[in-house]
Amino acid sequence: MSEVIFKGEKAKVASHQLVGVTTEEKNKALQKIANKLRSETDQLLAENDKDLQAGKMKGLSDNILDRIMLNAKRIDDMANAIELLVKLTDPIGENLETINKENGLLIKKKRVPIGVIGMIYEARPNVTVDAATLSIKTGNAVVLRGSSSAYYSNKALVQVIHQALEETAIPLDAVQLIEDTSRETAKQLFTLNEYLDVLIPRGGKSLIETVVRESTVPVLETGAGNCHVYIDESGIYEMAESIVINAKTQRPSVCNAIETVLIHEKWFQQCGLKLLATLTNHEVEIYGDQKVVQSYRRAKRATEEDWGTEFLALKLSVKVVENVHEAIEHINRYGTKHSETIVTETNENAEAFLMQVDAAAVYHNASTRFTDGFEFGYGAEIGISTQKLHARGPMGLEALTSSKYFIYGSGQIRE
Amino acid sequence: MSEVIFKGEKAKVASHQLVGVTTEEKNKALQKIANKLRSETDQLLAENDKDLQAGKMKGLSDNILDRIMLNAKRIDDMANAIELLVKLTDPIGENLETINKENGLLIKKKRVPIGVIGMIYEARPNVTVDAATLSIKTGNAVVLRGSSSAYYSNKALVQVIHQALEETAIPLDAVQLIEDTSRETAKQLFTLNEYLDVLIPRGGKSLIETVVRESTVPVLETGAGNCHVYIDESGIYEMAESIVINAKTQRPSVCNAIETVLIHEKWFQQCGLKLLATLTNHEVEIYGDQKVVQSYRRAKRATEEDWGTEFLALKLSVKVVENVHEAIEHINRYGTKHSETIVTETNENAEAFLMQVDAAAVYHNASTRFTDGFEFGYGAEIGISTQKLHARGPMGLEALTSSKYFIYGSGQIRE
Repeated sequence: MSEVIFKGEKAKVASHQLVGVTTEEKNKALQKIANKLRSETDQLLAENDKDLQAGKMKGLSDNILDRIMLNAKRIDDMANAIELLVKLTDPIGENLETINKENGLLIKKKRVPIGVIGMIYEARPNVTVDAATLSIKTGNAVVLRGSSSAYYSNKALVQVIHQALEETAIPLDAVQLIEDTSRETAKQLFTLNEYLDVLIPRGGKSLIETVVRESTVPVLETGAGNCHVYIDESGIYEMAESIVINAKTQRPSVCNAIETVLIHEKWFQQCGLKLLATLTNHEVEIYGDQKVVQSYRRAKRATEEDWGTEFLALKLSVKVVENVHEAIEHINRYGTKHSETIVTETNENAEAFLMQVDAAAVYHNASTRFTDGFEFGYGAEIGISTQKLHARGPMGLEALTSSKYFIYGSGQIRE
Repeated sequence: MSEVIFKGEKAKVASHQLVGVTTEEKNKALQKIANKLRSETDQLLAENDKDLQAGKMKGLSDNILDRIMLNAKRIDDMANAIELLVKLTDPIGENLETINKENGLLIKKKRVPIGVIGMIYEARPNVTVDAATLSIKTGNAVVLRGSSSAYYSNKALVQVIHQALEETAIPLDAVQLIEDTSRETAKQLFTLNEYLDVLIPRGGKSLIETVVRESTVPVLETGAGNCHVYIDESGIYEMAESIVINAKTQRPSVCNAIETVLIHEKWFQQCGLKLLATLTNHEVEIYGDQKVVQSYRRAKRATEEDWGTEFLALKLSVKVVENVHEAIEHINRYGTKHSETIVTETNENAEAFLMQVDAAAVYHNASTRFTDGFEFGYGAEIGISTQKLHARGPMGLEALTSSKYFIYGSGQIRE
């Protein structure tokens, strides 16, 4: 039997055992994991170092090595995040609906765990701890499939989690790590419908696209963000500048950073060059349409591909548009349905933009950088969903739950 | 350009136009469709007759011909269903959450349409009207792909819908029918991610399985119901009998009918033969395990395959089990996560069953036949979801909606 099927089945059995585990028992287990992470820091760093050495040998970029790297601070951060998770309200068991039928039937719709969550992710070992602890909090079992570049770190982290779970009500099998990180095990997870209830990819665009394309298990799609700022004719210069600079430069590598600024032609005539110069001062490379390139010589010409590209770097596409409608059309064509903002003092245009732009989060006069589970006050974040089913936008604990109808009768039959 | 891509794109454009259409405008359009169905009854019946004649030529079974068949009563029923739909509360625009941030940002999570719904279905032309009108009520565009056996009926029904929409705020393109019913157009819909936001299969097990396996568009899985009654040691005979007879025989062809009865061994010793004889009197064929076959000579031996089969006919598998835990295990192994019921006077066993059985609807002392959007009071039903994401159990209008965050600022940026 393959590792994936073996561990998938174990996770399924564990998910049945997790039914009925109390909030207190779950929180106790989470606290033990936090404690164990702190007390095993040296051991974790030693294992993490093996990944870093192997990564250097393989010539991984500094950027990727930084994602793999753990240190005492980062491990303490993980433990702190778990302690915040302990404090969050347990969503399981919440009564969502009560229906009293005339025939005496009592129908209750309650929140329940999903069952078994499959997680496929790249590099960052903290996803291992995140996914395991969020799953435990929501009564789910989890099958983790990280990348080879964090092999030793992930293995050590799961070992610490298993040690912490030993004297708790949570079965150890609730957290499974697929140690074989070959392409073959990912493919097996894609069609493990018998044991997995959902598959969540965390990582780059290509990983996410592969999972969406190949998985027959339902997928929670997270991540890709080709976000835009549209500056309308009546947009206030200072506000527009500060939102553009914030959304582009505060942290360019994240999904809620912007990749394109669309500018109303009249605003562009008046303030366009000033904004572009400020962007250049912030070391942002500009890829402009014809009008931009003609009036700002440091701008390069944007290709068709650029409008659809998530740069995740200090690069920005800039396009001059006729009006809000052209801006909406452009965004609905090239955007990834993540976060989009309009800067305007004209309420009618703001309303058209917010209603018609098809995205998880639409903003009026604010930076797109706020699309985030913690910023929204959810206290935890599984990822940001860019699909429309089940969950859309920042996903908190509720995204890891399902519902179930409990029906209480006294012999009722259907006429 | 293929018909599927052409109509998919048109539906997408229409879905953008549907944003901002008011409840009143939608209801007006729906009422016009109801009126037009009634006034065009003769024409519809004439077209339906072409399908029936073609079906007879092809040697379709009476059962399938009955599903295709329209008559004045059935068309009036469609119109009546639309008038009920008009009366239902419009879910679009509902405020789901309000977050006031300290920095002055106002975040509102509101219910919005999904966008474009793809519907793949078999035989029944009433699904055409159902899907179109439910989509309109929820502000979605819909791409319909029915079967060749209802070609003329579906075409005529969509024509009537388009005529009715002509003087309304709903764009005609919001309802698209794929007229080419070859296998190729279904396959194209499976991967039409650019234009479809969700794909809903309505029909037999094989259709649903194909869509789940091959579709990269998110799927709302509906339908298959391998449902069970478990009679516990303390189950009252009369109640058990009436629930089993109701759940098996009242309408054997539907998904919430039962396919297997599991019986506690002590109950079986006392009342098993009486129940089996009653089932035989109701013309139910029994497929039993060894104990059943040994004690009831009219029972045939159930094969391993029978436990997993949705008979949808007057056939029933019967198995004797040791206790509630064996029953739960059997159901979680062979069931399709639809509807499951326990007959017992022992609350502890009822609770274990309801908590541990993994199904959309779990019952204590009632027939599984109640799992139904109308029975639950939703006033409409898209289908019964047997998956755990987005919607589980009977799906009302809300299942055809998504959500969107609207964020109102005054220049806020992220620190």
